[in-house]
Amino acid sequence: MSASPFDHPFLSGLLGDEEVSALFSAQADIEAMISFEIALASAEAEAGVIPEEAGRAIGDALADFVPDMDVIRAGTANDGVVIPSLVATLRKAVGETYGSKVHFGATSQDVIDTSLALRLKKFSALIGARLDRVIALIEDLDARDGSVETMGHTRMQAAIPVPASRKIASWRDPLTRHREKLSDVTAEVAILTFGGAAGTLEKIGDKGAEVTRLLATRLDLRAVDRPRHSERDGVAAFGSYLSLITGSLGKIGQDIALMAQNEVAEVKLAAGGGSSAMPHKVNPVGAETLVALARFNATLVAGLHQSLVHENERSGAAWTLEWVLLPQMAVATGAALRTAAALIPAVSFNRP
Amino acid sequence: MSASPFDHPFLSGLLGDEEVSALFSAQADIEAMISFEIALASAEAEAGVIPEEAGRAIGDALADFVPDMDVIRAGTANDGVVIPSLVATLRKAVGETYGSKVHFGATSQDVIDTSLALRLKKFSALIGARLDRVIALIEDLDARDGSVETMGHTRMQAAIPVPASRKIASWRDPLTRHREKLSDVTAEVAILTFGGAAGTLEKIGDKGAEVTRLLATRLDLRAVDRPRHSERDGVAAFGSYLSLITGSLGKIGQDIALMAQNEVAEVKLAAGGGSSAMPHKVNPVGAETLVALARFNATLVAGLHQSLVHENERSGAAWTLEWVLLPQMAVATGAALRTAAALIPAVSFNRP
Amino acid sequence: MSASPFDHPFLSGLLGDEEVSALFSAQADIEAMISFEIALASAEAEAGVIPEEAGRAIGDALADFVPDMDVIRAGTANDGVVIPSLVATLRKAVGETYGSKVHFGATSQDVIDTSLALRLKKFSALIGARLDRVIALIEDLDARDGSVETMGHTRMQAAIPVPASRKIASWRDPLTRHREKLSDVTAEVAILTFGGAAGTLEKIGDKGAEVTRLLATRLDLRAVDRPRHSERDGVAAFGSYLSLITGSLGKIGQDIALMAQNEVAEVKLAAGGGSSAMPHKVNPVGAETLVALARFNATLVAGLHQSLVHENERSGAAWTLEWVLLPQMAVATGAALRTAAALIPAVSFNRP
Amino acid sequence: MSASPFDHPFLSGLLGDEEVSALFSAQADIEAMISFEIALASAEAEAGVIPEEAGRAIGDALADFVPDMDVIRAGTANDGVVIPSLVATLRKAVGETYGSKVHFGATSQDVIDTSLALRLKKFSALIGARLDRVIALIEDLDARDGSVETMGHTRMQAAIPVPASRKIASWRDPLTRHREKLSDVTAEVAILTFGGAAGTLEKIGDKGAEVTRLLATRLDLRAVDRPRHSERDGVAAFGSYLSLITGSLGKIGQDIALMAQNEVAEVKLAAGGGSSAMPHKVNPVGAETLVALARFNATLVAGLHQSLVHENERSGAAWTLEWVLLPQMAVATGAALRTAAALIPAVSFNRP
Repeated sequence: MSASPFDHPFLSGLLGDEEVSALFSAQADIEAMISFEIALASAEAEAGVIPEEAGRAIGDALADFVPDMDVIRAGTANDGVVIPSLVATLRKAVGETYGSKVHFGATSQDVIDTSLALRLKKFSALIGARLDRVIALIEDLDARDGSVETMGHTRMQAAIPVPASRKIASWRDPLTRHREKLSDVTAEVAILTFGGAAGTLEKIGDKGAEVTRLLATRLDLRAVDRPRHSERDGVAAFGSYLSLITGSLGKIGQDIALMAQNEVAEVKLAAGGGSSAMPHKVNPVGAETLVALARFNATLVAGLHQSLVHENERSGAAWTLEWVLLPQMAVATGAALRTAAALIPAVSFNRP
Repeated sequence: MSASPFDHPFLSGLLGDEEVSALFSAQADIEAMISFEIALASAEAEAGVIPEEAGRAIGDALADFVPDMDVIRAGTANDGVVIPSLVATLRKAVGETYGSKVHFGATSQDVIDTSLALRLKKFSALIGARLDRVIALIEDLDARDGSVETMGHTRMQAAIPVPASRKIASWRDPLTRHREKLSDVTAEVAILTFGGAAGTLEKIGDKGAEVTRLLATRLDLRAVDRPRHSERDGVAAFGSYLSLITGSLGKIGQDIALMAQNEVAEVKLAAGGGSSAMPHKVNPVGAETLVALARFNATLVAGLHQSLVHENERSGAAWTLEWVLLPQMAVATGAALRTAAALIPAVSFNRP
Repeated sequence: MSASPFDHPFLSGLLGDEEVSALFSAQADIEAMISFEIALASAEAEAGVIPEEAGRAIGDALADFVPDMDVIRAGTANDGVVIPSLVATLRKAVGETYGSKVHFGATSQDVIDTSLALRLKKFSALIGARLDRVIALIEDLDARDGSVETMGHTRMQAAIPVPASRKIASWRDPLTRHREKLSDVTAEVAILTFGGAAGTLEKIGDKGAEVTRLLATRLDLRAVDRPRHSERDGVAAFGSYLSLITGSLGKIGQDIALMAQNEVAEVKLAAGGGSSAMPHKVNPVGAETLVALARFNATLVAGLHQSLVHENERSGAAWTLEWVLLPQMAVATGAALRTAAALIPAVSFNRP
Repeated sequence: MSASPFDHPFLSGLLGDEEVSALFSAQADIEAMISFEIALASAEAEAGVIPEEAGRAIGDALADFVPDMDVIRAGTANDGVVIPSLVATLRKAVGETYGSKVHFGATSQDVIDTSLALRLKKFSALIGARLDRVIALIEDLDARDGSVETMGHTRMQAAIPVPASRKIASWRDPLTRHREKLSDVTAEVAILTFGGAAGTLEKIGDKGAEVTRLLATRLDLRAVDRPRHSERDGVAAFGSYLSLITGSLGKIGQDIALMAQNEVAEVKLAAGGGSSAMPHKVNPVGAETLVALARFNATLVAGLHQSLVHENERSGAAWTLEWVLLPQMAVATGAALRTAAALIPAVSFNRP
């Protein structure tokens, strides 16, 4: 069952990214959510909000707990979020004495948004490494072929000759700029969300700030002044950033596809796609894939911006829309970087 | 691995649709593609393009054939389309004597677009039945509650009282209009694609029209004058149509969420979502889901329209973009109709 | 002051369309709105809803009336719609005796949506004529150059030779299909909107159906069962249709830009754009403009679909969003058809 | 003639922004373009690339020059850019002796992108001041009404009471974050573009770096290592940023519209829109306008991201698409900030 090519038995080879998909799997999500609940119990125990024994009991019971997916699938269908049924399952696992201390003072969004933050942080590290790799590969290409004279094209017409290094720089520089901005843009999503029902931690009383601090430390996330339940600018900006990456890679793909045209032949591709009808062809599959992924993310980014209109203290509609968009954009970005890393070493500029 | 909520172990309970997803599974796709190849061999045999024995041998060998998914996943990653590796597998299954007659005169896009057509036709029937169902449920609601006086609201302010039937009509009428247009919009996608390498059936010679006719009959698809490899208006129009359906359902969801506000209390929901922090709440989960799915499809429709700029005889980039968008839009539409069918019977208008 | 290139002192030469812009000018809007008010008064007089003298007085006073734009600009800024201030102005023009009978029983949206309908009807006729013209020009090209052998390209690689007529057919056929659908898609927007405050014509009593019929006749618009204040499927479908047209023209533009590349030289352009730095260049400006306009409409269509989530009996937010999108999409469509009509006769296929 | 509400005789009162529109007027653009040509001549004279007299003569002749708009409108229609005809006009104004030194070594995109940079810099300052103003107004509201207890709503249902200050903080904090990022995001667009035909300054020889430095100083823009003709990440990021602002304001508008519902009555609006059919109503026009403008920019941002796929050294299609989108997004952002500045002081929280 694969409506999405990113999870598809055969299309994912082309369009997917296993490493990134793993971060957005249900399993990774649930593990991160349980790690939130364990860390919360531990932090609340230290702060004296719940008994120390409760903190320990919860940590012990949940450390290796695996919930029944059918139960929480049905619960999610009913509640619109996974947390009520997941928390009920976790409480049962902890047992009668301390079960009620699981998730104490927290709300669904605290857990779900923090789980996302934990995984986006890993994703960000992965993206950073891949950007470094692609930039290095572009520099290798520049070192090898940069001095080749190639024809510059403006408005789809031959203009004047330019060294390949000029064109290659226009591929690398945007990626370098994106790389420099990665930590800033990550800093606005790799944050702890902890606010309780309506963002005021009303059940924790005067220990709110302390539990927040302890929880953030345990999860190695940044604590922010106030939970951003209804403030989605970090998420929209992160998605926009991903689309800048795929768009910049799409430009590389478009250029390569144009230069690899038989009649233009400015570059040669070491490998390409086969055709079922024309065995002589070498299709610039990677280059076209970069264009497709760029246009995909460029399309979806609009939805994340629509989600900024997040009504009241929590919007079921706007928040749900994020879930349907952001993970796909992340996988598309991973796939584009993976594709670029395979494509660029296969490109060589033809000496005139 | 589920970047997409539509295939997700627990989110799919909320946002997915098993029946529609099944139509867009890799398995369904491959079955449809093999049925194309069998029908093609049979048609070409009847027309004398390939030997009669080849037609029979292909039909026999492929009737229950299941390809090795790992092989075609790797092939798809390399070729950008599944067909070269799939056809190689099929030819091997048919054996040396007639293997070369598999896929004779066809190209990748013939198979992939026809497979989509076969499944969109089933999807269209399913959507039609669900639209009928939702319309009937709205009429039941009208029959029961239509005479209740409710407050009309314009620009988010109470305006003048209107009977519930007036509001209910504004939910039903767009769906009725969509229902009436279903067969027209389906007619432009449930078509045979058969054109060979560049749309001219150059390998079939003067039998092109005959094979086309025989193939269309076998697959029960409409034959069109010329294959529409690079003409994507049918696909973009179909996607736009799906977004009209989800948008119209999203309006219903938005209205219900507004009327179900505690302070407004124009409607009561028989069931709703639970909250992990506030057990007293009954969240209008279905209503919010309809809004989210509407905004999702409204976002993705833009990408299908971008795909209209399909360069030359076949665009790897624009075509691939369709694959990443249309199946998801179909599942979202199925999910929205499923959600509406559950939500509407749960709504009752409060008598003042 | 021109944030939009469509109304821009110099960019409009490239991207604008004077004939279409005129239909969406404030002046055309106001004339259409006044014609609604005159026709309404006349219909209500005939039906006995207002005195016959009132109908005559209103017709006489408003026939050539031109409102003070500053007044209604300020009113629009305050009210979010032009109608309250416009109606106040019209009532004053009619005078004390019958002024109160102006706009009797109607609401802002009745006037604004009907004014749009009147102008979309003219726009639709104009689009139809231009589609006919472009199709005819493509057929002329086919008649002259169709037999030229040209190289078919798939996935940005030379595939096999095809006659130019094959490629030309892939340009014409979508336009032909669009042309055939024009009257259906227009039928859902060229309708009378008349419903009063919340769509129930509560002030007209049992004469609602009669006044509706008389008013529709006077304005030569289709009367529909119920006003569609909050049902925006006709508008979203119309916008989608416009984007199908521009997308199909964008594909033509993309093909021509690719074929006109110096290295490919499948077509020659009789005229093109000059360059400030490279006087030798002939830029395929018209072809690129078609691509830009296609991507523009493909972008905006998403917003019209977002507008389907139109809350309650009238949404200030969703309706206003339509105003910001649809007229631009119409002008872009006009500009694309105008550009195509200039570009296609300038194209000639090079004989090998 | 106003296809766009931003330039519209009466809709601009609601949706437009005169101050921002002025920055994107043809006049402002031409003034900035001429200032580029004057500064270029001066820099090239100082660097010895053109005679000193040429630099002076060009400065003198163009200081107050106003080109004939009809001529450059026709030229733009032909060339796809304004520069060839504008430069021809400027050269004529300078006269035969030194006319050929106007625009020496530059290309169209140098002038157009630098003109945009000059105006975006002013726009950025304006946006910064308006963000400060809106933030201050929100803080005033907090100071006055922050202690009011109001009902928190999650998923469109009453949750638990929260102080108004909690909700107000969720309005202010995103704007504060945007304000902090303004200079970074501006730094990537307020840059000098100077590269010549294909980005290599091939006509300036070894004086390229010097002229670039002198030109940047004269225009008070940042000089970057290489002209970014085909690297559009700065523009796409700037547009995304604008949409973050309008989206954050749209959330405020949505909240206010919801709280101002008659049945909810958490806030009162000191002023609102009138209705033509229901004189008793006070419509939350400003709040709805913020939602509409948020959804407008969220729609258009997708097109700017599509423009990242900018082929080769300069894309007529992708670049033109930016022209049709970015200025409108800027005006919408200005209008949203203007609207918020009027709306927020009109809001008061009702004490229970």
